[in-house]
Amino acid sequence: MNTKILDRVNGPADLNKLSADELTELANEIRPLLINKLSQTGGHVGPNLGVVELTIALHTVFNSPVDHIIWDVSHQAYTHKILTGRKAAWLSPDHFHDVGPYTDPQESPHDYFNIGHTSTSIGLADGMAVARDHRGDHENVIAVIGDGALSGGLAYEALSNAATLHSNLIIVVNDNEMSIAEDHGGLYKGLAQLRATNGKSPNNLFKSLGLDYMYVEGGNDIPTLLAAFTQVHDIDHPIVVHVHTIKGLGYAPALANEEAFHWHSPFDVQTGAALAPSAGRTYADVVLDELDAQIAAGVPIEAITAAIPGGFHLKKFAAKHPDRYHDVGIAEQQSITFAAGLAKAGARPVAFENTTFLQRAYDQLSHDLGVNKLPAVIVYSGGHVTGGDPTHQSTFDLAMLTNIPGFTVLVPANAAELTAALRWALAQNDWPVAIRLPRGGVDDSSEITDYDPNKMRELQAGHRVALLAIGSMLPLAQQVADKLQADSGITATVVDPRRVDALTDTKELHHLAANHELVVTLEENSLAGGFGEKVSAYFGPTNVRTLNLGAKRRFDHKQTRDELMNEYKLTVATATSAIEDILD
Amino acid sequence: MNTKILDRVNGPADLNKLSADELTELANEIRPLLINKLSQTGGHVGPNLGVVELTIALHTVFNSPVDHIIWDVSHQAYTHKILTGRKAAWLSPDHFHDVGPYTDPQESPHDYFNIGHTSTSIGLADGMAVARDHRGDHENVIAVIGDGALSGGLAYEALSNAATLHSNLIIVVNDNEMSIAEDHGGLYKGLAQLRATNGKSPNNLFKSLGLDYMYVEGGNDIPTLLAAFTQVHDIDHPIVVHVHTIKGLGYAPALANEEAFHWHSPFDVQTGAALAPSAGRTYADVVLDELDAQIAAGVPIEAITAAIPGGFHLKKFAAKHPDRYHDVGIAEQQSITFAAGLAKAGARPVAFENTTFLQRAYDQLSHDLGVNKLPAVIVYSGGHVTGGDPTHQSTFDLAMLTNIPGFTVLVPANAAELTAALRWALAQNDWPVAIRLPRGGVDDSSEITDYDPNKMRELQAGHRVALLAIGSMLPLAQQVADKLQADSGITATVVDPRRVDALTDTKELHHLAANHELVVTLEENSLAGGFGEKVSAYFGPTNVRTLNLGAKRRFDHKQTRDELMNEYKLTVATATSAIEDILD
Repeated sequence: MNTKILDRVNGPADLNKLSADELTELANEIRPLLINKLSQTGGHVGPNLGVVELTIALHTVFNSPVDHIIWDVSHQAYTHKILTGRKAAWLSPDHFHDVGPYTDPQESPHDYFNIGHTSTSIGLADGMAVARDHRGDHENVIAVIGDGALSGGLAYEALSNAATLHSNLIIVVNDNEMSIAEDHGGLYKGLAQLRATNGKSPNNLFKSLGLDYMYVEGGNDIPTLLAAFTQVHDIDHPIVVHVHTIKGLGYAPALANEEAFHWHSPFDVQTGAALAPSAGRTYADVVLDELDAQIAAGVPIEAITAAIPGGFHLKKFAAKHPDRYHDVGIAEQQSITFAAGLAKAGARPVAFENTTFLQRAYDQLSHDLGVNKLPAVIVYSGGHVTGGDPTHQSTFDLAMLTNIPGFTVLVPANAAELTAALRWALAQNDWPVAIRLPRGGVDDSSEITDYDPNKMRELQAGHRVALLAIGSMLPLAQQVADKLQADSGITATVVDPRRVDALTDTKELHHLAANHELVVTLEENSLAGGFGEKVSAYFGPTNVRTLNLGAKRRFDHKQTRDELMNEYKLTVATATSAIEDILD
Repeated sequence: MNTKILDRVNGPADLNKLSADELTELANEIRPLLINKLSQTGGHVGPNLGVVELTIALHTVFNSPVDHIIWDVSHQAYTHKILTGRKAAWLSPDHFHDVGPYTDPQESPHDYFNIGHTSTSIGLADGMAVARDHRGDHENVIAVIGDGALSGGLAYEALSNAATLHSNLIIVVNDNEMSIAEDHGGLYKGLAQLRATNGKSPNNLFKSLGLDYMYVEGGNDIPTLLAAFTQVHDIDHPIVVHVHTIKGLGYAPALANEEAFHWHSPFDVQTGAALAPSAGRTYADVVLDELDAQIAAGVPIEAITAAIPGGFHLKKFAAKHPDRYHDVGIAEQQSITFAAGLAKAGARPVAFENTTFLQRAYDQLSHDLGVNKLPAVIVYSGGHVTGGDPTHQSTFDLAMLTNIPGFTVLVPANAAELTAALRWALAQNDWPVAIRLPRGGVDDSSEITDYDPNKMRELQAGHRVALLAIGSMLPLAQQVADKLQADSGITATVVDPRRVDALTDTKELHHLAANHELVVTLEENSLAGGFGEKVSAYFGPTNVRTLNLGAKRRFDHKQTRDELMNEYKLTVATATSAIEDILD
């Protein structure tokens, strides 16, 4: 690859030595590097290709890290990383994994926050600007936020607050006309009108919130961007710079299919085809099949997503049932409050959520659904140890969901149990129900005829030791039982509790207490606020001892799943050993 | 009181039989009833006085409960209750407590939701409208939301979604120019311009979000309102009806002091003076005194509130340190993300929150503060059994806060411990810290010289039984210990754990394990996800038994604190008996 200009850029200060033509050439050098690495590692394709020029222009005009540039979601910060001393991670496959996918203060003084959720940048910038003012300093504070992220209510709260500041704050709206999928909401009518009128439309969200405003049509043209940013450099009040960019620019497959290339697994550069096509049927498909059946049977299902249809194959659902499909934008709060309204009026809403993003709707889960006992169904991904970035860690699902009164939380272990759980949830009218999707490929091997979430399922009858394992931990529990048998002749009881928010199967609980000296729980979510603690509290007053195995209350950073599972004693050897230590 | 017209109104249908003049007279009859009851029971004065005419007009034009009127926050629904069959609760002191302060489906088919948090009405209405469309029905769906509640991001998410609907949805913006306190944010510049221009200002938030819009200046004039609502009745698309009302209208003291009369304790009707003036120094004052001292010592404190300065006496702080006081509006998410930006840039933010509203910021506490390990301090009220409305229940504080990695959560028991906890939190740079304000009047009797949150405080040395009691439960624990001594000669150990998110005092924990057969925890927050479960999990593998006493995982409804504390075994008799049952 040609890196003639990039070879001279070891930090943002080097950009000032380059002409506008050389900066444009630099963009042309960076884009193939991005595509090359992304095709091998996977990652956010479209967002990064769209902001190459924007990033170069920002780092040319502003003086990072004295001036502060805060990247919303920060999944578009690859060029920022390349320009701030981390280009090696794009030049050689040996270094591809030296940097993470999001901004990270541990990587560079040019990164201020670990960010992976949307819509935070303006509020963070607002805080940094106020602290700067009280320090008596005058650096520029710049938030870069996409049009998709503007649909999150936090961005709006922060815009309204930013308008009250009497000092420098530059909000760059990177408008590529797309969220993860297409944009949804009336907000986007207004933005489209602004783009169509070169910023002149009277329907201007930013002005209506009291903010100064500038429109920049050429968001992928370096001279245009340099002029715009030079104009607002050191500005003495908050301003929105609305920049029109092209998501996926410079890579035809990404332009042709913006949603698929928002984030893409490794792909063939020539064709854009995925190198390892996805394996077909997933647990989301199991859910969608059941929803099809329910709709056919006349159940008034309404499917809801907060801008992440891809993870659940919801576009398939939308094609079949267009008026029953609702993408509310990156607006998890609204996804749940909307569901509450639907449920109250007799519809059967099913919200598809990712647990780390669903955190945004904690109050809506509690106040709108829980207090009101509305029978919405939440189908969610997460609840598993994955390693990777702490901003997307999904091990806090049970801490969030199982302590809200009224929520029934089900952790099915296979396809049959998932379908049964969903059917049960849709057949009752008393409570909201959350269902965690099982981990991994679809296990279609089981059949279930007697599903009742208030009845635990005993997989193996035993004595002395009982293993209560939820969802993905059931196969491990069976292996641990085998090893206990082999090691010490103990036949352990193995139980799938099915429901994890409360211990309702008193018959099985009495049986466990009567015939066991140790009850072990296995869960791969965080132990704090999780299932095991509830089991320990239940048996606390008795002579039964308990041991909770699960993830730590900790944000993990760049460890692998294998490393973490070993540390958490969620392998056959470590779990068995922990149990045997107590029995000795 | 004159109730000549009201005597003829037993439901909304009766309003149609009245002339506009009679409806105006009805408003004049209702207002003294509101003031009379409010002066005796306390409650939301200004919000209810402002919407008397608006409510009469809505119930005259629309056909509730076939048409659905959803009241945001629902603290302004008294006239709605009077008109929908519940007027007895305003006519006779014997019935004053027959109805609750918020809408409640258990009270009336005219109420759809238990609502007590702001900004939910538009999203709920959006869901009801979509369900209606799929049913093939055509009733009107109306959300009534105040200008204050518009500062919450959920309202914005819902406005943007509402704009995509192709059917009836009427959003009445009740603009009384006030939040709980004064409005904060650029949003309010735009609303003021709309009021000043009779709705003609180009800076129109609602139009910028793609919504149709109508302005109504005379929000307390029945004929004007009837005309406006008749115009939008059965409208075939979403519209915002922006109505200018006067908060506190008809009661001079409420007009003169809108913030104090947003919610007011019982007062003298003639003067507006509180019947039981507040008792002086509170735990919030203890915090503010320490912040004054820290600021004097050069610590860059920034105080933040999400529109509830009154509960913490923050106006006193604002008067002394105007540029260090930040009311972000009813925008809890922003209150925390803003704090994260401040902390990152070297300031020391202290956010004052109420735990039930802080739920809105769960993701910001986790992702913005927790992942980033930013040393913001959260001082919060709640965490106590209060009885009252489930929408404001405050027993979920530890379930929310203590399971987020990195948060240190402190539960001081008195003024000295509160000051020490705050000092400790502000002196460290490693983590966010949440501090629960103690319950009740200020206990200034203790002194603390050796505060360390990682060292438990042993109040009484004993054996066999240890009582770990947090905050307000310490006096109870000491009484229980006395009763155990008297009943059975057991000298119990009594411990204040101080820190409740993690068990870090290994020396004390070893001591407890070595010398006790039963460890009892006492907390008046919800047990699920709380402190006791962590203690039970810790001792699970040992021979020490545990008993967790605390509030149930349940939304309580209209019970008193005394009833609940008895049920939760948090009285001397019930707690001692529960302990003795295990020891027998």
